Amino acid sequence: VIAALPARPAQVWVVSSDFFLEGVHFLTHAHPPVAIGYKALARATSDLAAMGATPRFFLLNLALPPFRAGRWLNGFLRGVARATRQFGSRLIGGDIARYTAVAINVTVLGATRMATPVTRSGARPGDLVYVSGAVGAAQLGLELILRGQANHRRWQALLQRHLYPAPRLDLGRWLSSHRLASSMIDTSDGFSTDLHNLCRASKVGARIDSEKLPIVRIPASLTRKGFDAFTLGLHGGEDYELLFTVPRRAAERIPRLYRGVKLTRIGQITRRQSIVLVSADGRTKPLAPRGWDHFRQR
Amino acid sequence: VIAALPARPAQVWVVSSDFFLEGVHFLTHAHPPVAIGYKALARATSDLAAMGATPRFFLLNLALPPFRAGRWLNGFLRGVARATRQFGSRLIGGDIARYTAVAINVTVLGATRMATPVTRSGARPGDLVYVSGAVGAAQLGLELILRGQANHRRWQALLQRHLYPAPRLDLGRWLSSHRLASSMIDTSDGFSTDLHNLCRASKVGARIDSEKLPIVRIPASLTRKGFDAFTLGLHGGEDYELLFTVPRRAAERIPRLYRGVKLTRIGQITRRQSIVLVSADGRTKPLAPRGWDHFRQR
Repeated sequence: VIAALPARPAQVWVVSSDFFLEGVHFLTHAHPPVAIGYKALARATSDLAAMGATPRFFLLNLALPPFRAGRWLNGFLRGVARATRQFGSRLIGGDIARYTAVAINVTVLGATRMATPVTRSGARPGDLVYVSGAVGAAQLGLELILRGQANHRRWQALLQRHLYPAPRLDLGRWLSSHRLASSMIDTSDGFSTDLHNLCRASKVGARIDSEKLPIVRIPASLTRKGFDAFTLGLHGGEDYELLFTVPRRAAERIPRLYRGVKLTRIGQITRRQSIVLVSADGRTKPLAPRGWDHFRQR
Repeated sequence: VIAALPARPAQVWVVSSDFFLEGVHFLTHAHPPVAIGYKALARATSDLAAMGATPRFFLLNLALPPFRAGRWLNGFLRGVARATRQFGSRLIGGDIARYTAVAINVTVLGATRMATPVTRSGARPGDLVYVSGAVGAAQLGLELILRGQANHRRWQALLQRHLYPAPRLDLGRWLSSHRLASSMIDTSDGFSTDLHNLCRASKVGARIDSEKLPIVRIPASLTRKGFDAFTLGLHGGEDYELLFTVPRRAAERIPRLYRGVKLTRIGQITRRQSIVLVSADGRTKPLAPRGWDHFRQR
């Protein structure tokens, strides 16, 4: 697979490359092939959103068993096409191999007009912490599927954020081009883990107000079944929301809603390199990174 | 995994992204981890050589079972480092995941000063066909390993082209920058298959002189064991030589040797879209693409 990128003198190219593996990132017995194709692309594209970049091109490496080359592959490619249209990028190369399982690697190439794109390492003590949308919705969908509740008609709508997440491309570009965000990351591994990643890269800590965290709302009947919204929100992965920091002087320029996406101020960056949750009564407790970690037993 | 590429106004970026999968592209029980790390990078870098580009950066996605995280991983990373030094590229991003097997994806980003890099689609009827080095050496090494002959001390030297292939970066750049090659491809899938790929992309055919093809020399004792040099040369994969076409008027500028690498004129491009082998007595027979094909039963 090889392709040439047109020269764009006023722009910087950014590149993101991600695995999407059967049994690790998706389950062929539980996830529709359309959603697998869509998410393979959404996952890599979300990294670009967090840099304020615009996706332009992508390369798709696909390995699969021969028995998936018919109907399954058609569905998968429909999902890829849907994501391509939605994100405005174009397939410029790809390869296909025979393998024992479905393994996908997506490389997305994007452009930004910023000489120095937003990174996760620019947060400074005193900066305010924001998150877009709500956290926990994707994990709720995954757990409904894993518990065999996915076919209940009344929960169908709750699966959408898990199956078809929408990278926050417009928001990322807007924050970046107006130089409002000092640092930014997408919540792919889970809020707690991604906040840790951002703080580690910036060599800072954070205080998060528990009650301000915009957490997925779940029906009372699911709470009775043991679903815990707060745990889903803190540690659930794959929301692909933007978690970003804003210097205090720029805070007044952050609206409550940007093109229909809620923006919530949830805390602030501290010099002390620890991450704590502050409850409404002022009590603090450490927030451990309990989201997705490939080498921890789950 | 995400990284920004520095702007280089006078250059075009090219990108190559390749899987390197256990059981498909390598065997963990037969290949040393150092060679696996080296080849993962060599394979993707060779694509750039065929475009006349210079590798600058690469991204490495690695999935592996936990039991490979110690000594095996150290060896693998030594191989990656060796390739990095040899090819002059630099790791700018990567990801690691837990998986049931070793799966690798390497994305290499390179630069070329050509406004339009050499592709495989530019061959024209009458162009002369050349190949660098010799073909079949890598397949010979693989078959020695598969037949359990790899530990024989006398055959050790024959494994090197299989374990540590050298992408023809200098040659590719030279042919490209002097605009000598009308089309170019690296022989990764095997001479016969790559020639078919080049001819299909260029909508042409080719006549190849059998006796001119520079084929690996094999010891007589291996011939007696059933190794057939001509078959290895025609269809054996992973030599990573350059197969290129040159307009007739530029042929006198192609030396027999470029920086120690032999360049051999082996035939010519035809308007008729068939690929034939011509023997010394003038008889012709079709050359089928019998190299590497992921979806053919082997």
